[in-house]
Amino acid sequence: MKKIKIGLIGWGTVGTGLVKLLRRNSGLISRRLGAQLVISRIADLDITRDRGIKVSPSILTRNPSLILNDPGIDIVIELTGDPNLSGEFILQALRGGKQVVTANKALLAESGKILFKAAEENNRGIFFEASVGGGIPIIKVIREGLAANKITSILGIINGTTNYILSRMSEDGISLKEALSEAQKSGYAEKDPSLDLDGIDSAHKLVLLSSLAFGGWADLEKISVEGINNISAEDIVYTKGLGFTIKLLAVGKQTSAGADLRVHPTLISHQHLLSSVNGVFNAIYVEGHYSDQQIFQGKGAGEGPTASAVGADLIEAGRNILSGDFIVPGRISVENDLKLAPKGGIECRHYIRIPAVDQPGVLAKIANILGSGNISIASVIQSSRRKSGVVPVILMTHKAGELSMAKALKRISQLSEVKSSPLRIRVED
Amino acid sequence: MKKIKIGLIGWGTVGTGLVKLLRRNSGLISRRLGAQLVISRIADLDITRDRGIKVSPSILTRNPSLILNDPGIDIVIELTGDPNLSGEFILQALRGGKQVVTANKALLAESGKILFKAAEENNRGIFFEASVGGGIPIIKVIREGLAANKITSILGIINGTTNYILSRMSEDGISLKEALSEAQKSGYAEKDPSLDLDGIDSAHKLVLLSSLAFGGWADLEKISVEGINNISAEDIVYTKGLGFTIKLLAVGKQTSAGADLRVHPTLISHQHLLSSVNGVFNAIYVEGHYSDQQIFQGKGAGEGPTASAVGADLIEAGRNILSGDFIVPGRISVENDLKLAPKGGIECRHYIRIPAVDQPGVLAKIANILGSGNISIASVIQSSRRKSGVVPVILMTHKAGELSMAKALKRISQLSEVKSSPLRIRVED
Repeated sequence: MKKIKIGLIGWGTVGTGLVKLLRRNSGLISRRLGAQLVISRIADLDITRDRGIKVSPSILTRNPSLILNDPGIDIVIELTGDPNLSGEFILQALRGGKQVVTANKALLAESGKILFKAAEENNRGIFFEASVGGGIPIIKVIREGLAANKITSILGIINGTTNYILSRMSEDGISLKEALSEAQKSGYAEKDPSLDLDGIDSAHKLVLLSSLAFGGWADLEKISVEGINNISAEDIVYTKGLGFTIKLLAVGKQTSAGADLRVHPTLISHQHLLSSVNGVFNAIYVEGHYSDQQIFQGKGAGEGPTASAVGADLIEAGRNILSGDFIVPGRISVENDLKLAPKGGIECRHYIRIPAVDQPGVLAKIANILGSGNISIASVIQSSRRKSGVVPVILMTHKAGELSMAKALKRISQLSEVKSSPLRIRVED
Repeated sequence: MKKIKIGLIGWGTVGTGLVKLLRRNSGLISRRLGAQLVISRIADLDITRDRGIKVSPSILTRNPSLILNDPGIDIVIELTGDPNLSGEFILQALRGGKQVVTANKALLAESGKILFKAAEENNRGIFFEASVGGGIPIIKVIREGLAANKITSILGIINGTTNYILSRMSEDGISLKEALSEAQKSGYAEKDPSLDLDGIDSAHKLVLLSSLAFGGWADLEKISVEGINNISAEDIVYTKGLGFTIKLLAVGKQTSAGADLRVHPTLISHQHLLSSVNGVFNAIYVEGHYSDQQIFQGKGAGEGPTASAVGADLIEAGRNILSGDFIVPGRISVENDLKLAPKGGIECRHYIRIPAVDQPGVLAKIANILGSGNISIASVIQSSRRKSGVVPVILMTHKAGELSMAKALKRISQLSEVKSSPLRIRVED
């Protein structure tokens, strides 16, 4: 049986999971692929730490060049996550005629134009199933499973950390701070959780999903991104009472004006397929002209699921090698930039929480501003008086445009009775 | 750009959807595939009916041989659903060196051993994404997306008709008969719905899913199949009160004794990922050693979703042709039969409804029989007295084996106070 040789650069949690997977399932994978995947070298700065698996010391090295310059290696797996070096590793591998597998979404989102171009020029593939949605094979689903469709809409819960935090806030009424600290203790959040909480990680993944689905490169810089930092325990309570769940959504929609791409906390109705996706689960909702509504759900992170995705990529890369380096159709193309819709174009319902001094006439002033911006109020929740004298005014609006809403919120925040910035959450209907 | 020629045999609803799809998305598909898909001939017994699309009469024929014997045709799409002829069409196409796409699950489940063998011998593929789960790309997900995993468990809601009926019964408390007639009026159930209601359609699909996932041919005859005909409105009410939803599940599990394959109404907890899959939606839950729990959900039938799946298969078949008829790895292999677990091996909790005469001592007799079979009762629901004098005794048991449960149910049905066969529903924990 033909052997396909693999070099692994970056031997952390996912790399360790992968080595376990390839060892445990080697027979099964050989049968399914029709070739044997052999790890011929592993490079990492730390090759002495005990990772709970035995690996022959002869294949370990601190020097990634021994992989990149080895003509016998067919596939390079880049799992360093190193923002400075990983791109260079991938370019070298492609130029050396190797197929590349990576889980590095930040790198691909930021430098994808260069990297995917290099892949095309060298007639090799960059496989990145593990970069979005953990073990959910969403890249393959969009690229191949739904390939006959014009995809119209992608809604993704694609950051496990924020989904865990929002789920915990909703379940137990705890604050974001408490939920975050719990997530950190359970290993679901990094020490510095800002990439997750600020929505950047979701935006990285949205670049990949929408570039693939909509057929043009989606520039990270042009995606509007809002994180979950301002969501309070009381927002969770009020919106739940109104029949909604708050989720950090990555939204990609094809509109007649271009692609509408954004990441922000979003209210989704309890009836929506995504509303019951809780904890560390990820889910991606995809709508196509023919395929209609679909949802793909699974664990979004962790050694096992991520190793599963890297393993699928290895088999796919192996398939390409066996078929004579035939290029996978439908890959991300960086020739054209995706045409984006102007940012003010969206219209949706909004939830607004305005921290205001409890005085007669405040609501009238707020209603006035909204009315003059042509925003109609659907309902108002009066919360009970508080010792501080600051009482949130909670509003649901009917559909309103992005620009008039921004304008109105600015005017509201300038009212003397309003003590801090209003919070608004868009509704996904 | 290279042209790939297609012949379509069977021009019904799905075929019509496909012709629309290929026309509307031809540019997009050519870009994604790198070749142009051209429908060069359509065969159907009825080529005059108005299908709402214009097709050049020159490509229409009543004679499928004009497709099967045309050396210029690369891919044959078999959508006749004809139980007598479709198999012969597929065999002829494969022998003529054509790739084959079909949605005919009944045919594949019954004659898969012959057909997949012929595909292998002729170095061609049978693509059947549309045969399970409508537009959900579950075949590709299992074959490729999760290919690095040992798959341990598949739970499928893969029959839209029964799921619609059970959902309607649950929503509005109506009877199965009423829900069925509603489904028939809405086009969600056939005039003769027995294949769906009896669970046979789900079993056909389970053959395909488990043969693919577990790596050996699953013989249809050996799958235990139970339909939903005996589920009553009161079962829905009682089980809902106990925290469960009733779903017709296709179950495939790898156990140490072999594969455990069955189709039956099943109680799943409201917390389970599958419990909120309602109406005509299908969903397949797949668990792998590394991928962990995943769920794939979408519309299980209809012109659009099914055409989407056939379209994806065409692109996949086209990719194979472009890569020099390279065989897709991980396909269904019919060399070996799947090793099946002995049928009595399962253990689970049960819901039991026993229609009994309302007399003192009945419950004691029932409890006695269960106890002597080593089945312990977890709870009993006493329903209110009725004019008829027959009152259902409703029980939940703790985990009990299949054989002892069958024995106990038989003894209970022989009690003079028990007026008709007890109903039992297994719990999926």
